[in-house]
Amino acid sequence: MGFMIGIDGGGTKSIGSIVDSKGMIIATAEEGSMNLHTREVEAVGHTLENLINKLINAAGCDEREVDLVSIGVAGIGRKRDEITFRKIIERINLSIPVLLNTDIKIALVGAHGKEEGIFLLSGTGSIAYGIDSTGSEHRIGGWGHILGDEGSGYDIGRRGLEKIVQGIDKRVDSSNLKKRVFDNLGFTSIDDLINFVYSAKGTKADIARIAPIVEEGAQAGDKICIDLLIEAGNKLVDITEEIIFQMPHNENLVICAGGGVLENITTVYKHFHFGIRKKYPAITIIPPKYSPVLGALIMGCKHLNKMEEINLWKNQWKQVK
Amino acid sequence: MGFMIGIDGGGTKSIGSIVDSKGMIIATAEEGSMNLHTREVEAVGHTLENLINKLINAAGCDEREVDLVSIGVAGIGRKRDEITFRKIIERINLSIPVLLNTDIKIALVGAHGKEEGIFLLSGTGSIAYGIDSTGSEHRIGGWGHILGDEGSGYDIGRRGLEKIVQGIDKRVDSSNLKKRVFDNLGFTSIDDLINFVYSAKGTKADIARIAPIVEEGAQAGDKICIDLLIEAGNKLVDITEEIIFQMPHNENLVICAGGGVLENITTVYKHFHFGIRKKYPAITIIPPKYSPVLGALIMGCKHLNKMEEINLWKNQWKQVK
Repeated sequence: MGFMIGIDGGGTKSIGSIVDSKGMIIATAEEGSMNLHTREVEAVGHTLENLINKLINAAGCDEREVDLVSIGVAGIGRKRDEITFRKIIERINLSIPVLLNTDIKIALVGAHGKEEGIFLLSGTGSIAYGIDSTGSEHRIGGWGHILGDEGSGYDIGRRGLEKIVQGIDKRVDSSNLKKRVFDNLGFTSIDDLINFVYSAKGTKADIARIAPIVEEGAQAGDKICIDLLIEAGNKLVDITEEIIFQMPHNENLVICAGGGVLENITTVYKHFHFGIRKKYPAITIIPPKYSPVLGALIMGCKHLNKMEEINLWKNQWKQVK
Repeated sequence: MGFMIGIDGGGTKSIGSIVDSKGMIIATAEEGSMNLHTREVEAVGHTLENLINKLINAAGCDEREVDLVSIGVAGIGRKRDEITFRKIIERINLSIPVLLNTDIKIALVGAHGKEEGIFLLSGTGSIAYGIDSTGSEHRIGGWGHILGDEGSGYDIGRRGLEKIVQGIDKRVDSSNLKKRVFDNLGFTSIDDLINFVYSAKGTKADIARIAPIVEEGAQAGDKICIDLLIEAGNKLVDITEEIIFQMPHNENLVICAGGGVLENITTVYKHFHFGIRKKYPAITIIPPKYSPVLGALIMGCKHLNKMEEINLWKNQWKQVK
């Protein structure tokens, strides 16, 4: 067995690693977004090509020595997007075979180190995704910031701003949160906040960056902030409950909780953890074991029927962690 | 007293009327949006100029015979927007004096036929706006579709779509609503819905147009639809209660309920009406009396100290209605 490349094709950036035949990570590189909805097909093709070339050059190997490129990318669950992405791969004339999965699948496999379990992600967006013991896949949420993404960073940030404008209307007392957000983002008037939200500048990622400010408020004892984060935790409990309910083969369920919100916003994590443990005392909740890129590599091994390699590789990854 | 022009400078279109010295509406004309955030300053200037020229030409009068242009336009409450709009007026070199008010103020004055009362608007967006017996102004909501607009057409439409994707996740049974929306908008797959919401096509006005489909469902007895509209009605009760609470001089309060949702979505109106009457049996709820354009003309009379004209004019407007 030769080299293998794993790629996490994200909406804001793409990360790839190349491993040798022993699973040792030889090089890791970053490129731009692979979002098929916000970028041109040519641009995504260039990004993919550049990322692969960077990795091959860094490893000092030849394209023919690479057995597989295992990619996780958003939208592959939708036929239209999958067709588009396959055309992109054809267009860049890659001689290496490509394995294509959704971004959430490689994230779950990375998080659990295997193709089984529940992965609850809350970052800018949110989704609960599960693979049961028979290999069937389930998903709840992940419908984007307008229709879904409950308990995500965007959701927390948007709700925080909503409380601030309700404070201006004197419907709630959110003056502490307002001060924190204004100081942090350099707003001097409510007009600045409105421009931030409704101008092109206030992307969903920008609004999600307000979530850590809400957490600061919660840590300082601000009740509005604590309530917002408890609400987010409860929403994450809801979508997790839905996925548990929909997984018929769910003996020995392990939930992995990952993403910026669950890994950094302590108040959300605590309330999520408490909510799940109260309802399902037998369920184990763990942090992610490996990155989505390593999940892509595990999927790659499985695809090449190199199952025995996986455990050896994981030992390597522990050493580099 | 000569002619007078009233203009409702809206976010999607602008309407203007020219009246003679007896308040008789001589001509009404329409032009594009006066939204200062989505259009260039030059374009808004042209729109305003064209609208005024159209009205003067239709009335067959001369610019010098027009005493006043009374305009209501969104954003005038914000200093930055008011300065921009005043620059636009200067730029088009108008010889007629201009009176500038917010769009919501001319709407309230039109709705009540005078500068006093509460105007609850729910169309694409929502806002509760009040002028008390001392003339002071109060507002709740109206913070736009991301931060506010509770109980608006956008809010109802977005919640309806949210229920549909939750139905795909088997969290609720929204299959009837899904069928209605898909049939109505020509969607053949959930990908079409996602593209509609996240592509440039799905503007907030497009999403608001789903509200009447939810009403159709409610009329047919679909519980999901009925609940969504009750929820919207309750949100409108909430913002109305807030404004009642914040108006210290609120003897003989009259609430005017207007906009596409309150005038056409019966289930919302009924629940709103019921909610307010239960809590405030003494408060009268009325439909809008006159349009915002006529509200602008009433403001114009007041500005020119022609208070006695207003009642005469109103009689004219009844005849043309």
